[in-house]
Parts: sequence; C-alpha cells; structure tokens
Amino acid sequence: MAIITLTTDFGHKDHFVGAIKGTILNNLPEVSIVDISHAISPFNIQECAYILKNAYRSFPIGTVHVVGVDSELSPENQHIVVLVDGHYFISANNGVISLITSEIKPEKVMEVNIPNLNSASFPVLDVFVQVACHIARGGKLEVIGKPFDALKELKEFEPRITNDGKTIIGNVIYIDNYGNVITNIQRSLFEAYRNGRDFEVIARTNKIKTIHNSYNGIINYNLEKGQRKGPGDALALFNSVSYLELAIYKSDQNTVGGASTLLGLNYRDTVTINFL
Amino acid sequence: MAIITLTTDFGHKDHFVGAIKGTILNNLPEVSIVDISHAISPFNIQECAYILKNAYRSFPIGTVHVVGVDSELSPENQHIVVLVDGHYFISANNGVISLITSEIKPEKVMEVNIPNLNSASFPVLDVFVQVACHIARGGKLEVIGKPFDALKELKEFEPRITNDGKTIIGNVIYIDNYGNVITNIQRSLFEAYRNGRDFEVIARTNKIKTIHNSYNGIINYNLEKGQRKGPGDALALFNSVSYLELAIYKSDQNTVGGASTLLGLNYRDTVTINFL
Amino acid sequence: MAIITLTTDFGHKDHFVGAIKGTILNNLPEVSIVDISHAISPFNIQECAYILKNAYRSFPIGTVHVVGVDSELSPENQHIVVLVDGHYFISANNGVISLITSEIKPEKVMEVNIPNLNSASFPVLDVFVQVACHIARGGKLEVIGKPFDALKELKEFEPRITNDGKTIIGNVIYIDNYGNVITNIQRSLFEAYRNGRDFEVIARTNKIKTIHNSYNGIINYNLEKGQRKGPGDALALFNSVSYLELAIYKSDQNTVGGASTLLGLNYRDTVTINFL
Repeated sequence: MAIITLTTDFGHKDHFVGAIKGTILNNLPEVSIVDISHAISPFNIQECAYILKNAYRSFPIGTVHVVGVDSELSPENQHIVVLVDGHYFISANNGVISLITSEIKPEKVMEVNIPNLNSASFPVLDVFVQVACHIARGGKLEVIGKPFDALKELKEFEPRITNDGKTIIGNVIYIDNYGNVITNIQRSLFEAYRNGRDFEVIARTNKIKTIHNSYNGIINYNLEKGQRKGPGDALALFNSVSYLELAIYKSDQNTVGGASTLLGLNYRDTVTINFL
Repeated sequence: MAIITLTTDFGHKDHFVGAIKGTILNNLPEVSIVDISHAISPFNIQECAYILKNAYRSFPIGTVHVVGVDSELSPENQHIVVLVDGHYFISANNGVISLITSEIKPEKVMEVNIPNLNSASFPVLDVFVQVACHIARGGKLEVIGKPFDALKELKEFEPRITNDGKTIIGNVIYIDNYGNVITNIQRSLFEAYRNGRDFEVIARTNKIKTIHNSYNGIINYNLEKGQRKGPGDALALFNSVSYLELAIYKSDQNTVGGASTLLGLNYRDTVTINFL
Repeated sequence: MAIITLTTDFGHKDHFVGAIKGTILNNLPEVSIVDISHAISPFNIQECAYILKNAYRSFPIGTVHVVGVDSELSPENQHIVVLVDGHYFISANNGVISLITSEIKPEKVMEVNIPNLNSASFPVLDVFVQVACHIARGGKLEVIGKPFDALKELKEFEPRITNDGKTIIGNVIYIDNYGNVITNIQRSLFEAYRNGRDFEVIARTNKIKTIHNSYNGIINYNLEKGQRKGPGDALALFNSVSYLELAIYKSDQNTVGGASTLLGLNYRDTVTINFL
C-alpha cells in the first residue's frame, strides 16, 4: 500500500487537513495517509525542514511526502517534485528541500506542470494532492512535470570553528515539546575536533562539562534516591538524531519549565563548546 | 473501503477519540477513519458547520460523517441521521445540519431509534458509532431509525444588501489557524451586485480597494524585493472556498500577528463592501 | 489487520510521532496505527494511565498498546511487555501498568531483552516499535523477552471512608478538555455506602445535592426555556466511565470557563460526599 505523508502549518482545527485527506481517499482509496506534523509555525521553512528531515527516513523507500508550508505558486516559488534518497517530496521551491537533504544530491527535480489545474490560495489541495496520488499510483514524474534546474538553496546556520580548532560556536535550531533546546552541533563534528580533550559546553551563563547519550545519563543509580540528580536538573546530550541538545531532566513546560525557559535559550541563540 | 469521518469538540488529550476509534475498529476492522477536526470550540455549532461544510465534499459519495458536538440526547435534541448530497451525517438535531447544507435539500432524515441502546453522557460512543458502522457496512437507515420531519433550522448571519444595492454588509464567521478573518460574503454575491463598479472593503478603520484570488496577489513580482509589499501587509481575497477573507500576508499569530488581531476583527464583527 | 495504538507525551509538533509511524509501516505495511493521545503532560504517569485505562477496552482483544511516557531505560525502569485483559502493553516499568489494570491480574509480564538493540534517548522508536511489530505479526513474547516478576506498583489516591461510613473523601484525578473535574469516586463505591440516604457533594464552598447520569440531567424540559438551568450551571454526574464528575453545563474554558476554574478545583483536590 502506497504511503503519503503530510507536513503542514495548517493546524488541527481548520478544514484544510480534512479536505486534503478526503481528496486523497477519493482519488486513491487504498493509500496510507500519515500526518507527520500540522503544527509547523506558519511559513517557517527551517522548522518544517528540521521535523521532516528527522522523520522521513523512517518511512519506506518510495513514500510520497507532501510539504504544505509556504506553498503558494509565484514566479519565484514554483511547485516542484524532488526524488531524493529514494523518497518523493512535493513542495514549493522555497528552499525547504535544500535544508532537508543538505548532504544528499537529488536524483530528480521536476517543476509541476499540469494543464488546466486551477491553483490559487490552496495549492496543497489543488495541486500537491493530484501530484501525490499520481506518484503513489506509480505514475511517471515526466507526466506531471518537466526537469527543473533552479532548486532554491537555503543554508541553515552552520557551526563555526574558531580559536585554532579549540572552539565550536553553534546555534539553537529547534525547541521541542519538552522545551529541550536542539543545536546544530552534530556528534560527528564534535568528535572530529575533540582529540580526546576535556571540554565545556557554554550556553549563556551555564557551563556543562559532560555530554550524555541519554537523558538519565546524569543520574547515578548507585546513589540513594535523595542524593541523586533528578527532575529539574540541566544536562547536555547527543540526542536520538545525533545533535547536541540541552535538556532539563523530566522537564514539563507547564510546571518546572523546560531548558529553553530555564536556560534562557531561544531559536538562533549561541551555544559554544570550548576544548580545554 | 468505507470511510467514517469524525468532527468533534473532544480535543486531542482525553480518551474520547481513542475509545471511539477502538470501538469502530472492533465493529468494522476494514474501515478508514479520518479525523476532520477535534478542536471545535466546545458546543460551537457554527464553527463545526463551517469546518465540516468545507471538508465533507472532498470525500467520496457514501462517506459517513460523525458530528460529535452538542450531541447529548434530550427531548429537544434528538439523534438523527441525514442523507444529503450523497453523504451521511450522524448528529444531534441541534441545527448543525441546516448550517452545513443550507443550499441543498436532504434526501432522507431519520431519527435514530435503536432498542436497548444505553446512551447518557457519551452518545457519540454509545450511539453514533453504532449507527456509523451500520451504515458503513451497507445497512439500511430504516433499520436504525424512523423518518423525522422536524429537522432544526439554524440561520447563519446572512449578508445584507442596503443603500440601493451599493452596500453589502457582511459578518466575520470564522478565524483560521493563521488568524485570517473569513466573512460570509461569497464571491457570487459580490459579483451579482458589482456591475463593474469600483469598490471599497471596509473593516473597522481599514479600507481595502482590491480583492485578490491568492494571498500573493498583493505582491508585484516586477518590483525589486525591497520595494514590494510583503509579510505583515493586509489584503483581501476570495479564498479557496469563495468567501471574502481578510488576511495578513504570511501571518503568524505568535510573531507578527494575524488579521484578526492586527485589524481588530472578531467573530460576528461587521465587514462592509461599498460600491463606488 | 493488527492494531497498534500510541499513547505518548510527544505532543503534535515534533518529528517523534511521524518517525514512529514510518518505522511501524516500514516493518509491517498492513497494520492499523491509532493515536490514543500524544498530549499527555510530560512524564505524567497518572494522566497517561487515566486516559489509556478508559480507551484500551474499546479495542479488539489482541491490540498492542505502545505507552511512550517516561520510557527511558534505566536499572530501575526496565522495558516490559504485559499481557493483561487480552491486550498487550509495551511500556517502561514505571508503574503505569499497575494504574491501568489495578483490578485485573496480568497474564504475562516480560522484560524486553533483544540483543544488539541500541536504545538511548528514543526508546519508543528504537525498542517499543520493534516489540510492537513483533507481537502484531503474531510473534511470541518469549522471543523478545524473559519473564519478569518485579512489576512496579503505583497506587492512585483511593477514596477514604470516614465518619462511620457517613463520609466518602475523594480526590480530583483528571481535568478534561471541557474543564470538567473527574474524581476517583466510582458509582459502585457510592452505591455501596449510600443505603438509600440523601447526600451532599461538597467541593470547596460548593454543595451539590443530586448526581445525574447525563450532563443535561439538570435541565427540566417541562419548564419554559428562560426558566431552566442552562449553560454555565454546575452539576455532578457519574460520567461515561462511572466516575463522579463535577461539570459546568456546556462549558467552554475559553469563554464561560469550566468546572475546574469556576469551582476552583485542581488535580488532587478533595471532593467529599456526606450521607445525611
């Protein structure tokens, strides 16, 4: 059974997602529709890319991903289909694809070109869904588009190496449901520069000297419960997608707060690693 | 595969939606269950109707729509099934059907009447799901109900024409995920009275002289980027379901704000079109 | 078709749920994945248990329930699979199972023990999904675990009987989407002690003398509309899962408020029944 995923900024209340699913099922009754997220901040390409980049690879090769963020057609925002890493992405040419697949070269990039398709203020319904169903049915890309060589490139912040390789300066790229702060510093970069040295992670006035592999890495289970670290304590870890993350152990933004609020870190703020 | 859609005010946290889906799958393993919305404001019939009206037609003929808003049985709020426009709606007789299908005559209206069904505080689970599965299985309406001729009629605000046809006075009927403000003035009404005249859309102190067909209709792509209109600028358009909508280009209610807050427009507020 | 349900505190924005669903579909294309809730308050075992307890029984026998709250592996928080009441639960040994199934004895409790599985900060993806697919495929529990006899027991507050059986002192255990306040006093307990007596439900300064079976139980439909109770009035009922609930008729937390705010009742607050 073919799979079509949806990643949008449509929210969970309006009729948009329902109308899209109805149209897909009307076209293609035997398809699995999977919501990746409808809670992307409106028009936020970076957020959309972070979420989709960390979800799409879990799906089978051949999955069709509809990207419904900033999708209105314009002379500068074409509708495109990209085959990359074995997955199909249908989106506008707003740079989101370059952020998702920064390390992989697309196999095919097509501009959508379907005669007589009416698209104005709701292109995800009017265009993307038609394209998605065509691909999910096994149709050729050539039927609904033509080759396109102007894929827009956006660059996410990249960590800077300074101080003769003694310092990595990164940035906050995402804050998750727990208020945990994800930076753009990947484990591989850290390891490449570390050379066995000790280090400090510095975020505003906070200094952290250990990077764990799990949230409960800060807990010493050999101590009595009352003497251990626990809920509310800050830590650094390489998270499940290998980014450096600053977290509060068992945080809840509605009660004890999360790392973002407790450490005072927002999107794009600086997080620094100093090798000692 | 039969399709059952769900539109409720149950929210996304409680056990209600899970219990409903489990019960449906227990009754009818081979069914597609589609969430249209669970974020209707509690007991808000108007909002429910707006969302469902703009979503249901995308689904195949024969789809069963469960409407779980204000559904408790009472002497004045019967449980009904309505076949209209080829779709089945299961709801309480609270007026929601009249708002969804104001322009179409129902083919059949039945009052649900299933012996030995226990229904008290959770009728969507106890009654609507049974009815939905019966219909989805191909069962006859006559088995679970009897003809009903007291369908409750609610009237949404309708635009008023005044000033010898020079003025259309409409109202805000919905505010969407982007803060965009949707009015009850439809494109067809506007065109019927326009007669080629110029016009002004007036919303509080704002005057807008153009109605676009897309959000980026306000952008002049021939200008340099710095000289164009852009994010944060207000516009009017006929939206994807042909209603007059006041919007902020690339609005985000958490950052730049949306049309509702920036233009000071709430549900039921007046929006006027003057033909010049 | 096998069913896997998901109950987590992952929220609706991040990539977590999408990655999980992709992985399940990659392992087992023909499975129904049902979201029970992703809006559990972070690490809140009690809330998770309340929601799952009231949803799981609606699903067919043999359904696999993934419980993704506080699931990180530690020496004190093993990964377990429990077969109870015909349903499979995959969770950490944090007590959630004891709260869900307090009145039923598990048929099997296994500790997950899969060689070469890498699990650190995202065990629901790395471990639970593998286990869920194994079970959904009809695999034996013995293949992925070994018997476990240290199931952690958590006790939810239980109502206390005092004053020679004249008083039941209960607590608020959940506040739902409408702001309705659910207590731990079940209908069966109330009936066991009532002995035909009149009673008062006391919650802070509020005194309620009737417990209804439905929300509109407070409405006297023989009266003219203007003279009836209606939206905004408080009531007590035994809700659809037989707990004593304090509610506001047709409440909306964004407008008139809900029982929690209007009656001043929060999680764990006391609600008392005095038999007269």
